Amino acid sequence: MSAPAVASTPSPAHGTLHKCGDISATPLKSSIVFSINDRIGILDECLAAIKALSINLTRIESRPSKTDDWDYDFFVDFAATSSDQVASVVKALEPLAKQVHIVGTAGDTLPESTPWFPRKMVDLDTFADKVLEMGEELDADHPGAKDPVYRARRAEITKIAKTYKTGMPIPHIEYTKEENETWGAVFNKLTTMFPSHACREHQYVFPLLVQNCHYGPEAIPQLDSVSRFLKDCTGFTLRPVMGLLTSRDFLNGLAFRVFHSTQYIRHHSRPLYTPEPDVCHELLGHVPLFANPDFADFSQEIGLASLGASDEDIERLATIYWFTVEFGICRQGDKIRAYGAGLLSSFGELEYCLSGKPELRPFEPAKVAAQKYPITEYQPVYFVAESFKDAQMRVREFATSLDRPFSVRYNAYTESIEILDSKEKVIRYAQSIKTDMLTLVDALQKLN
Amino acid sequence: MSAPAVASTPSPAHGTLHKCGDISATPLKSSIVFSINDRIGILDECLAAIKALSINLTRIESRPSKTDDWDYDFFVDFAATSSDQVASVVKALEPLAKQVHIVGTAGDTLPESTPWFPRKMVDLDTFADKVLEMGEELDADHPGAKDPVYRARRAEITKIAKTYKTGMPIPHIEYTKEENETWGAVFNKLTTMFPSHACREHQYVFPLLVQNCHYGPEAIPQLDSVSRFLKDCTGFTLRPVMGLLTSRDFLNGLAFRVFHSTQYIRHHSRPLYTPEPDVCHELLGHVPLFANPDFADFSQEIGLASLGASDEDIERLATIYWFTVEFGICRQGDKIRAYGAGLLSSFGELEYCLSGKPELRPFEPAKVAAQKYPITEYQPVYFVAESFKDAQMRVREFATSLDRPFSVRYNAYTESIEILDSKEKVIRYAQSIKTDMLTLVDALQKLN
Amino acid sequence: MSAPAVASTPSPAHGTLHKCGDISATPLKSSIVFSINDRIGILDECLAAIKALSINLTRIESRPSKTDDWDYDFFVDFAATSSDQVASVVKALEPLAKQVHIVGTAGDTLPESTPWFPRKMVDLDTFADKVLEMGEELDADHPGAKDPVYRARRAEITKIAKTYKTGMPIPHIEYTKEENETWGAVFNKLTTMFPSHACREHQYVFPLLVQNCHYGPEAIPQLDSVSRFLKDCTGFTLRPVMGLLTSRDFLNGLAFRVFHSTQYIRHHSRPLYTPEPDVCHELLGHVPLFANPDFADFSQEIGLASLGASDEDIERLATIYWFTVEFGICRQGDKIRAYGAGLLSSFGELEYCLSGKPELRPFEPAKVAAQKYPITEYQPVYFVAESFKDAQMRVREFATSLDRPFSVRYNAYTESIEILDSKEKVIRYAQSIKTDMLTLVDALQKLN
Amino acid sequence: MSAPAVASTPSPAHGTLHKCGDISATPLKSSIVFSINDRIGILDECLAAIKALSINLTRIESRPSKTDDWDYDFFVDFAATSSDQVASVVKALEPLAKQVHIVGTAGDTLPESTPWFPRKMVDLDTFADKVLEMGEELDADHPGAKDPVYRARRAEITKIAKTYKTGMPIPHIEYTKEENETWGAVFNKLTTMFPSHACREHQYVFPLLVQNCHYGPEAIPQLDSVSRFLKDCTGFTLRPVMGLLTSRDFLNGLAFRVFHSTQYIRHHSRPLYTPEPDVCHELLGHVPLFANPDFADFSQEIGLASLGASDEDIERLATIYWFTVEFGICRQGDKIRAYGAGLLSSFGELEYCLSGKPELRPFEPAKVAAQKYPITEYQPVYFVAESFKDAQMRVREFATSLDRPFSVRYNAYTESIEILDSKEKVIRYAQSIKTDMLTLVDALQKLN
Repeated sequence: MSAPAVASTPSPAHGTLHKCGDISATPLKSSIVFSINDRIGILDECLAAIKALSINLTRIESRPSKTDDWDYDFFVDFAATSSDQVASVVKALEPLAKQVHIVGTAGDTLPESTPWFPRKMVDLDTFADKVLEMGEELDADHPGAKDPVYRARRAEITKIAKTYKTGMPIPHIEYTKEENETWGAVFNKLTTMFPSHACREHQYVFPLLVQNCHYGPEAIPQLDSVSRFLKDCTGFTLRPVMGLLTSRDFLNGLAFRVFHSTQYIRHHSRPLYTPEPDVCHELLGHVPLFANPDFADFSQEIGLASLGASDEDIERLATIYWFTVEFGICRQGDKIRAYGAGLLSSFGELEYCLSGKPELRPFEPAKVAAQKYPITEYQPVYFVAESFKDAQMRVREFATSLDRPFSVRYNAYTESIEILDSKEKVIRYAQSIKTDMLTLVDALQKLN
Repeated sequence: MSAPAVASTPSPAHGTLHKCGDISATPLKSSIVFSINDRIGILDECLAAIKALSINLTRIESRPSKTDDWDYDFFVDFAATSSDQVASVVKALEPLAKQVHIVGTAGDTLPESTPWFPRKMVDLDTFADKVLEMGEELDADHPGAKDPVYRARRAEITKIAKTYKTGMPIPHIEYTKEENETWGAVFNKLTTMFPSHACREHQYVFPLLVQNCHYGPEAIPQLDSVSRFLKDCTGFTLRPVMGLLTSRDFLNGLAFRVFHSTQYIRHHSRPLYTPEPDVCHELLGHVPLFANPDFADFSQEIGLASLGASDEDIERLATIYWFTVEFGICRQGDKIRAYGAGLLSSFGELEYCLSGKPELRPFEPAKVAAQKYPITEYQPVYFVAESFKDAQMRVREFATSLDRPFSVRYNAYTESIEILDSKEKVIRYAQSIKTDMLTLVDALQKLN
Repeated sequence: MSAPAVASTPSPAHGTLHKCGDISATPLKSSIVFSINDRIGILDECLAAIKALSINLTRIESRPSKTDDWDYDFFVDFAATSSDQVASVVKALEPLAKQVHIVGTAGDTLPESTPWFPRKMVDLDTFADKVLEMGEELDADHPGAKDPVYRARRAEITKIAKTYKTGMPIPHIEYTKEENETWGAVFNKLTTMFPSHACREHQYVFPLLVQNCHYGPEAIPQLDSVSRFLKDCTGFTLRPVMGLLTSRDFLNGLAFRVFHSTQYIRHHSRPLYTPEPDVCHELLGHVPLFANPDFADFSQEIGLASLGASDEDIERLATIYWFTVEFGICRQGDKIRAYGAGLLSSFGELEYCLSGKPELRPFEPAKVAAQKYPITEYQPVYFVAESFKDAQMRVREFATSLDRPFSVRYNAYTESIEILDSKEKVIRYAQSIKTDMLTLVDALQKLN
Repeated sequence: MSAPAVASTPSPAHGTLHKCGDISATPLKSSIVFSINDRIGILDECLAAIKALSINLTRIESRPSKTDDWDYDFFVDFAATSSDQVASVVKALEPLAKQVHIVGTAGDTLPESTPWFPRKMVDLDTFADKVLEMGEELDADHPGAKDPVYRARRAEITKIAKTYKTGMPIPHIEYTKEENETWGAVFNKLTTMFPSHACREHQYVFPLLVQNCHYGPEAIPQLDSVSRFLKDCTGFTLRPVMGLLTSRDFLNGLAFRVFHSTQYIRHHSRPLYTPEPDVCHELLGHVPLFANPDFADFSQEIGLASLGASDEDIERLATIYWFTVEFGICRQGDKIRAYGAGLLSSFGELEYCLSGKPELRPFEPAKVAAQKYPITEYQPVYFVAESFKDAQMRVREFATSLDRPFSVRYNAYTESIEILDSKEKVIRYAQSIKTDMLTLVDALQKLN
């Protein structure tokens, strides 16, 4: 899926850039993280104190502390009814705990709080029921809006996403003949364009997808096979999604090298048009790039910057995402080629973007982040990356200029985010780099 | 599970130290890895060439090259009937490919080959049918050897391991009242010993297991819950196993932070005795330590050293494993405490090892690796580690002294082993360290 | 001193951008570096072979090899009469030696050769007699051109530079009352401008120079005192110079953190004007910046890139030097301030550059390197650095894009350049980084 | 020179292991280091405040702060008459300054103070007048004790050391025919032993000293030439010394890669015997090893650990020095060889140490540090290093176990010690490592 949206998505998709809190009926998802000193019985006391609170608990976990040796960390997730309630929970825990961090309450009564963000891979499971637009309410201009059979099929497929949990294989979908034909039409049209318009990285991976994941005009490839292929290449995985996520949730997923992907396909009546992301967009536009290590690093970099970012910074990062992962072009030798999925999955705009008509500017994140853009028509300006490595470095620099008061890293062993906010954590991180240097020296010595 | 075996395992367990090739009926598991230059159609040509070979293919994968930009890597697994056949396969591929590496054929006709080792997490699935000892043939001195009900139950449980595949949750086992009572007897006995005999790390994690994984005298905890807990702490996971693996397979698993664990329990007639590893040994002895980051690093270090090692080096590493993960003791302040699972799950030997009677020597891997040991009685000598970090450094140094001609690293994103045998791979690794340094500097700047 | 020259230097200074080989009468300075395997007597054999050659030897040194353990490196400097002679020397040594590198012969007969560059601090001693313009031949428009007393005094001072050798203290000069008054006029005028026009780094260091190095309107500070101060701050040192060096020599000096500085002063008749660098320019313009660690890194970066660079790349680097160290401006908060010495020592241009009249462009080395510039009038364009750290990173990236086939580092312990052109040297370097990581981890642990 | 002393030095040398404060007449050498915030005029105010104190100032320096950007650091050295006086100075400065550190007062009134240590290379100049034993008072058993001509000559030579200052070339000594003959006798005797007894590193460097520094039986080589050779190899330099320094001063010198060396020679009556270090011991024993990069790292490591160490830790480090740099042996393949200068310059003990008679133990710093040793006879025990790299790592680990509350690094650019006691300094250090990683990656990419 694309966040904020793919090209030509009509105006409601603009909602993707709205604040996280816009979905007003939703209770506030809150997390409290705190540490306690190691002494006999303390774990039970804490657990009892939490259970005594009149809150709707969704998770309690105690873990070895990542901050101080021999301390314990507690993670408590709950659905708060108000930020007052959050404040009262914090107050109740303070006598027992030290370093109480609240994550996830918007609202000015707790100005020190950080917007909620996932810290473990399984936290992504909570995104499923927060989708902005449901399949049942297709926009009036959606080619399938008036087709009840299409809408029923679309709803059937999105149900998978609703119940999907981390670690499950992505369910196989038996696509209909009609669906496969729609895919075939798109596949055949776009693959004629790739040799002259797609970036080298896209062209390089495409035959591997043909050979390993059954890419071809006959049938829609299965997400599960594609996801396993990507996992081997870069550690990226796909996760089925019902529709548009908020920008925040979507970008947060990238921090875990998780890409939220649709599984349904556009309406058969107009195979070369779709107002929303569909499986053609994902498989032909996005997937080939996520097999590239530098692009994977680049995408995760945006994701890491989005964790706990302010709403304004989320908007900036979503704009950078838009002009790179969706509509990015890059220099390759003396040529310009497309790498954005919004381009690579749109026959018309792919031709247009390299036609010399639109304005091309160098990729400077601070400027890109401030650029306005239309979502229902071709982009008037594109930004040219020198390389994915270069783009990653620039996004990283940009990210450190944002005012988030902590630094994060992704730990691929534990599939969790580590907040590097204590000396002890930084030391542990420095030690891991030291150990990596030992491996590097050893590898150098054994070379040839 | 423990490899080579737990204390008191009778002599057949000695088989664990035998050569990998001992299971003579098994066809030779072989892998061929080669690279091809990027040109149009080459992927299909290669695939056709491989399929034309008269070999029993178990996997073919093509992937982006980790060595040269724009090359492709091919991975072909097959069951060879002889090393001659392997040689002929290599010969057939040479005109198409460059850098053909053969992994997995023992035998002197191909002296340049390396013993087979898993390169991806899913490769561990092949271990299931290579277990040295099956439940059906319990040794005569096994307390359950003459109890057909016990043997049937044990076989029922090990069936799980036989069909288990990477990524699946570990199936829940509804333990019987009798089984839970056996567990309760062991639990109650050993937990009285831990405060005075277990190392600090064990004591620190134990209450977390009580709170998060239902450790307690009433019922045997479920492996799946424990495995998820460990994944959060250090990235270690458990995998069900039927019985004793070869030392090579068992140690290879540690390279992926995978610990092969039994699920069945000892015979109820003698709750404080077992001649083979069982779920009490795993859960009370091994699990608490794998939640410690330094111990996890240490264990993986042994695993990484075992990949592709010669049979002699596997024996050395298995001996180090024996004297650390199974029977290790360590200095903590002015006291000596046990951290080996063979000790922590054996009432008698736990008391004995700290009694002042056995000989204690400093942990020096080269000397440990050469130490003979009995497996049916208490150890006459134990080796004292200064700390897990220190032990890790020493094992790493020892590992670089082994004569394996390449260096490896584990990539936790792709859950695969990278062989650092080309300049390009080493450069990519160095770049990742450079990037980590940027994160470190940023984290330092944001501290406080 | 400034290279290529200071603002308002008349056209002859343009010679600084000419090829190194322009000084046609000079014999070719050549170095041959080769390695020999360790065997008994080999050192003597090599020495004998070299002495038997009919060349004018200026240095022979044998040293422990930095490439292979137990090999020896030989360094032979000689003045060649032709590149044919160089070729014949190489040929004579080949039977004895391996890895024969020739440094320093221009000319197409030996296309594989690299322009000569200093490898040890003492090699800078050879620059003294290669100055482009001597004091005796002042340009017609030099205010002192017709003043024989001034010219004699200038010659007397430059004699110091001619005999100066590495490691010597810089001789004290007893400046005349007239000279001190000229200095005082410049000092008083410029110091009124600094608070509003100089960058923060300049303003910060200036009072330290007053307190530690006797900066003030009364008397010209002594280079030796200033050089010792800089050594303490960043390791930069000053070296007296007779006049304009070639761009190559001047930039090469920066690789060693050596700045070639004039000691004489402009003509008293026009205290606010000089067509060539003088001690006012050096002390008020350059010196304060070299006390800043980031600026020191930045300057050395240009120097390192210049070692063995082609003539075209030297010209590019000299242009970057011109637009930064001489005429650079930078952003500081919401203000623009000057840090280039050509600006900071010129009353008129310092005012002009921040007046809003000239064009300001962002500092992008590839573009800066291609920019033409006048040397007798104010610059029409200035380049704005975001910070010295940022500028250093950009220059480093630019440097790696130059086509020099090797990478260098400066070893401050041995005061020599190491060419990282063998696996062994890279390993040794990686080991030193690993050791630094140990120190870093230790320092982190002891923090607070 | 050797500290604590060379083999066979009679008992007075034991004084080298005494406390630094033993030389009771010496006034307390004290340093105060403090920082001040940048504001107009603050530097002058501070200077005035310091000058107003009634103390005997030996140095005042203000420098850019290494801790906080835009702060200033002040370094004030003075000779205190009592620790009360030091306390009153601190008190007087407190209103102006922040972070006042006192270095160098022993005594319990200021328990937070650290023993004085050199922070800049020039600080080593203060060691000259603190020598424990003067040439004028040779011990009764010194072969030259009764020879007034020898004693006068020895005094003449040591005068050089008394006036030597950092940066000066080491004065040339015109050795007499008798002196050269004594040298020749020692040289000829020992060089017959080296092939079978000296470590590979010693044998490898020796012919380079012959070729570059005029080593040979005819004449005593000049220290200056040898020092320049070492500077090229590893950055080590020699410094002339009058006699035995305190252990603290001697070891502190090693932190700067400075080795304090005698220039006089033993009495001609007994060429194979000396009760004190002399130029034969230095040139034949020490010098060849300091040309080895790993040995240089090892030696500096001991030096860095000694800076500001407690008297007890100085004694531990001096003992480690004794059993390594003076009396160390090492494993080389299946042989044991000598690398300690006390062995390599003593015909008798060199033979003895490898004879199989004395006890050999592995080099474990914590145990070595506690070993008692005789200084007037052969050592009963020697410690065997596996390699210099290994020994360095072990000493580094040992050093971090000492209770000095700060971590140091040597900055070879500024020839000064940096105390890594603030976040800002650690960040700057981490940044320099990051920059080194860039160079490493670039070098790797350019390899071959």
